[in-house]
Amino acid sequence: MIRMASGWFYLSCLLLGSLGSMCILFTIYWMQYWRGGFAWNGSIYMFNWHPVLMVAGMVVFYGGASLVYRLPQSWVGPRLPWKLLHAALHLIAFILTVVGLVAVFTFHNHGRIANLYSLHSWLGITAVFLFACQWCLGFAVFLLPWASMWLRSLLKPIHVFFGAAILSLSIASVISGINEKLFFSLKNTTRPYNSLPSEAVFANSTGMLVVAFGLLVLYILLASSWKRPEPGILTDRQPLLHDGE
Amino acid sequence: MIRMASGWFYLSCLLLGSLGSMCILFTIYWMQYWRGGFAWNGSIYMFNWHPVLMVAGMVVFYGGASLVYRLPQSWVGPRLPWKLLHAALHLIAFILTVVGLVAVFTFHNHGRIANLYSLHSWLGITAVFLFACQWCLGFAVFLLPWASMWLRSLLKPIHVFFGAAILSLSIASVISGINEKLFFSLKNTTRPYNSLPSEAVFANSTGMLVVAFGLLVLYILLASSWKRPEPGILTDRQPLLHDGE
Repeated sequence: MIRMASGWFYLSCLLLGSLGSMCILFTIYWMQYWRGGFAWNGSIYMFNWHPVLMVAGMVVFYGGASLVYRLPQSWVGPRLPWKLLHAALHLIAFILTVVGLVAVFTFHNHGRIANLYSLHSWLGITAVFLFACQWCLGFAVFLLPWASMWLRSLLKPIHVFFGAAILSLSIASVISGINEKLFFSLKNTTRPYNSLPSEAVFANSTGMLVVAFGLLVLYILLASSWKRPEPGILTDRQPLLHDGE
Repeated sequence: MIRMASGWFYLSCLLLGSLGSMCILFTIYWMQYWRGGFAWNGSIYMFNWHPVLMVAGMVVFYGGASLVYRLPQSWVGPRLPWKLLHAALHLIAFILTVVGLVAVFTFHNHGRIANLYSLHSWLGITAVFLFACQWCLGFAVFLLPWASMWLRSLLKPIHVFFGAAILSLSIASVISGINEKLFFSLKNTTRPYNSLPSEAVFANSTGMLVVAFGLLVLYILLASSWKRPEPGILTDRQPLLHDGE
């Protein structure tokens, strides 16, 4: 049972890694090939960091970091290293996100473009704000030693739910962002968005990849049987027996 | 225990009903007050049915229909009436959705505007297609009498996961749709989208309400303890004892 369950799990990890890499690489390629590449000078080429870093931070690293406790290795032995890994990966995701926000705000301010007016930006900034709250609350309750087991087990399902909810908000933000960017970039051209030029097909496909990656993360997180058994109920060895459930 | 759990449940239902009604009413008000109201003649006023019917069908009715088995009344007694209610409410949601699609396709065809080019439309049509598959598969497996209990219990978590996934896709579609509509409608005006005229604030807020409604549905569906106990494990009376868990 454990071999079969582990086999499926590692196959899912392989698929997850491939999808996640493709999400980031496709966004880089879109910005590099059709939008003129990258710079850090307040120009439109500085904006180009924004989609890459948001997809990398709020979707791919965030999604990967959220699945740490689904690794069967994390079910046995001390939990602290896995908690630290979970927190550290989310911190990397958060730093990428903040740099991605700096890129778009600097570009806007440099070009005297208004900030935070579109629904994309309202939803996106809500997702980042909730992510910051979630990280700080998670750090305070699950990593610092003061909280009782009672408080932790009370907050754990809420932590997991908000983790998944923030990923859903991020995906909705990314979709509306790609959509908006294509309407901006492909107007006043010989081949506008509605004629589906190759850039539009490529960027739409990138958006669909982000959705597929997000759904796979949510599946492994919420619906699969690859869950760490509850603490206190099972000893170090028992999870192995329950793995194939 | 049951009284307290039920109390919270009905409070959540009240909040859900209020949020859902506001989502639909706000979308109607946006279309009526700022976009000239409704017609069924291939004009832009026919398009105005599209956002209203998609929010009503793919989000509000869909969300409500998905929560039928969270009603404590559905936990006892025969299951067939609740299954029929679940399927019927989803069928109403699907019909609203199809009429909403007819509205936008007719408007496009009438005005010689391309169909299905934006990421919004790619994601939206994917969500509707998955919804149709989910309904047919659910009907075939859970309502028709041929399927074994083994097959049903195998497919149930997949059915619940895809139900939640389709709602997430719908929300991402609605967000990108509202965002796109505002960029279309508020260009070449004295107060464009980026100056946040009252229409933009109102429609952005409608989008945020849709997100709040969707997250509340997902919370009740996936993370709350208001779940129908597994069949075969508990008798008709036992769920009452387990209600406050």
